[in-house]
Amino acid sequence: MSDRYDIAVIGSGPAGLEAAINAKIRNKNIIIFGNKDFSAKLVKAPKINNYLGFYNVTGKELKKHFEEHIKKMEIEITEERIDAIYAMGDYFALMVNQKTYEAKSIILATGMQYGKPIKGEEEFLGKGVGYCATCDAPLYKGKIVTIIGYNKEAEEEANYVSELASTLYYIPMYKGEYKLNENITVINDNPVEIVGDDRVNKLVMKNQTIETDGVFVLKDSISPSQLVPGLEMENEHIKVDRKMQTNIKNCYAAGDCTGKPYQYIKAAGEGQVAVLNAVENLS
Amino acid sequence: MSDRYDIAVIGSGPAGLEAAINAKIRNKNIIIFGNKDFSAKLVKAPKINNYLGFYNVTGKELKKHFEEHIKKMEIEITEERIDAIYAMGDYFALMVNQKTYEAKSIILATGMQYGKPIKGEEEFLGKGVGYCATCDAPLYKGKIVTIIGYNKEAEEEANYVSELASTLYYIPMYKGEYKLNENITVINDNPVEIVGDDRVNKLVMKNQTIETDGVFVLKDSISPSQLVPGLEMENEHIKVDRKMQTNIKNCYAAGDCTGKPYQYIKAAGEGQVAVLNAVENLS
Repeated sequence: MSDRYDIAVIGSGPAGLEAAINAKIRNKNIIIFGNKDFSAKLVKAPKINNYLGFYNVTGKELKKHFEEHIKKMEIEITEERIDAIYAMGDYFALMVNQKTYEAKSIILATGMQYGKPIKGEEEFLGKGVGYCATCDAPLYKGKIVTIIGYNKEAEEEANYVSELASTLYYIPMYKGEYKLNENITVINDNPVEIVGDDRVNKLVMKNQTIETDGVFVLKDSISPSQLVPGLEMENEHIKVDRKMQTNIKNCYAAGDCTGKPYQYIKAAGEGQVAVLNAVENLS
Repeated sequence: MSDRYDIAVIGSGPAGLEAAINAKIRNKNIIIFGNKDFSAKLVKAPKINNYLGFYNVTGKELKKHFEEHIKKMEIEITEERIDAIYAMGDYFALMVNQKTYEAKSIILATGMQYGKPIKGEEEFLGKGVGYCATCDAPLYKGKIVTIIGYNKEAEEEANYVSELASTLYYIPMYKGEYKLNENITVINDNPVEIVGDDRVNKLVMKNQTIETDGVFVLKDSISPSQLVPGLEMENEHIKVDRKMQTNIKNCYAAGDCTGKPYQYIKAAGEGQVAVLNAVENLS
């Protein structure tokens, strides 16, 4: 059996970080999933004036303060992408590649980077569409696989899958240099629709259509309702009450994913409220 | 007619300050009432670890960062105590001593320092009980006035009223030296009940009872429901929705006064949400 954490925090923006530091202060056994840059939005912010205590800072500078804070509290970010979270009654199962993590309580702080799904993506989810290429790779041995990658981490997944697949198409949704195996075919085009019968068989792009047995959409994060089956949404945001409790017991949410305004200190405040209520419920 | 502000912020803790900086960034004409120490609770905090970006700081250190922030944004705190706020339809009237301020929108960030009322205090409010001695002084010419003072500012009010009253009793609820006129009688005792018929005529204390025509209770802040007639409360806190909107249109609340957890960054986050919604409603 895997270790069971008291609290798992999904996301490393201000909401997730603030949740993690409060949980740590309350002596809880926690894990926080995210990436070492914390949040793409934060790092790119040219100037921040509305985070009380820091005047006229860049996103990078604010990130440094956050970094120092969690480092001194000995909080480490686990750089793995959660593919699904299942409510199992008295705990949650978090699926990550071939592993499963367990936690009594969940804080969703996934931000709003996920954007709209491609046409057909939701329809064929589990029928050839997936969000974790490495998890499902064994199913595609000798088959044609297409990976739509939104960030450089997707390249590693593509390389891994290319060793099993007969053909691997990589469609990068970002600019830069790619570190891809030689047997990977890069297509610079925009996905329009995922098409199939019982299962996926084609990907339609703006300028061409390819035959494919599977399509993996590897974004920074997937939408919360896809991540946590049964999670109640409201106008594209996670529905929460004033305690940041979602409709699922012991599952809280904080930050941009709960609604506007999309602001750092709003997110941090919510992360604190969410985790302190989670802590109270644990005891 | 007095100036009409876009937004008046009541309270200078993290919720009020964060509201003020956001309003300023949005080019609103604002006024913030409070005191230059911001918040008694903040200044006294020995160690703060859970305000993301500042690790292991004292309340005084955090206060300095806040101070620098609002100074650079040219925000000045108006050190006057609001006695009552009346919703006038399309604006609010804020009563301060002999003056009236006007604002289109209100952010209540009053904290939780007010404590429970004395027995009889609410019953005789406006019938001999008041929260602003200087405002009501003319009514007590030649009469017996009792001032229950919770802070040094109350002494100034006592001195002012003592010039008109026949007798002035001052009951300090704090320790320290008092700068009081010679004709003021200091009583070191604990108020238990305000008694009267149609109007106040006695104050019962633990060890003695005095006859008095009026009792002024001068706390750091008065409870929000006393401050804003008609404001809906829930379990001793101001009832708000996820937009920090109260039951009164264009009246928002943020920070400790809206409920637990009583924490700095929770308060700041709420201040931001409240004021950004207020700004949206103004336009």
